[in-house]
Amino acid sequence: MHIAISADHAGYDLKNVIISAYQNQHEFLDLGTDSATERYDYPDQADKLADAMRDDGLISFGILLCGSGIGIAIAGNRHRHLRVALCHDTTAVRLARAHNNANVLALGARLIDENVALDCVAAFFDQQFEGGRHLARVKKLY
Amino acid sequence: MHIAISADHAGYDLKNVIISAYQNQHEFLDLGTDSATERYDYPDQADKLADAMRDDGLISFGILLCGSGIGIAIAGNRHRHLRVALCHDTTAVRLARAHNNANVLALGARLIDENVALDCVAAFFDQQFEGGRHLARVKKLY
Repeated sequence: MHIAISADHAGYDLKNVIISAYQNQHEFLDLGTDSATERYDYPDQADKLADAMRDDGLISFGILLCGSGIGIAIAGNRHRHLRVALCHDTTAVRLARAHNNANVLALGARLIDENVALDCVAAFFDQQFEGGRHLARVKKLY
Repeated sequence: MHIAISADHAGYDLKNVIISAYQNQHEFLDLGTDSATERYDYPDQADKLADAMRDDGLISFGILLCGSGIGIAIAGNRHRHLRVALCHDTTAVRLARAHNNANVLALGARLIDENVALDCVAAFFDQQFEGGRHLARVKKLY
């Protein structure tokens, strides 16, 4: 699977952990940032991911990381082709895919342990959208 | 404080719990839904809140509730005058207000206990925005 991943400085370390853990299973497009110490604004990193998911025909999923996940999820959801789900555990992740057909997973690097984050990533790509009554609601998100 | 609150069927019971707990401290505009059994689409309930926060000059904050909080947070953040923070504990809530100047709190009624939800609501209205370097980022969310 081709996955775009984008983080601000607070999400930089977790981005590397995720790529290292899953690079044998997925192809990652790393949109930065490239430093844990130089400050990057989370809205810019969300916009980069939105551009990549619009322009790169291979990429259908994304991951967004900032300190809490909150800011980068707000910024990502400004783009109507993204359905960004901010999750803190695998239960939320499974609902995000099954009911909301989320195409972007947002995680708060300073709020959850990296083991939880890795489980969330695995669950995100494991769970399918259920469709049915959920499809009508998802269509209203465009 | 004047607060608009809007929920789908999955958030109906928690909406009533929140209003009952805080009605002596805050003025709530209850935008429904009015049933836990009749199905409502979460995007419609988010749109109602967006309309109220645009048109009602007294309301500067909102609360959105659905099963996971994920769908209604995506729908709410389609509206650029809303900064919807989906939170699962008070740490996330405080960061949402302090760093993101979130004006809407989203909660997952089927994922967190009602005591946690009530603490989240209290923390949301207790924490101030810190401004400073965070203001430049928040401005990029409009």
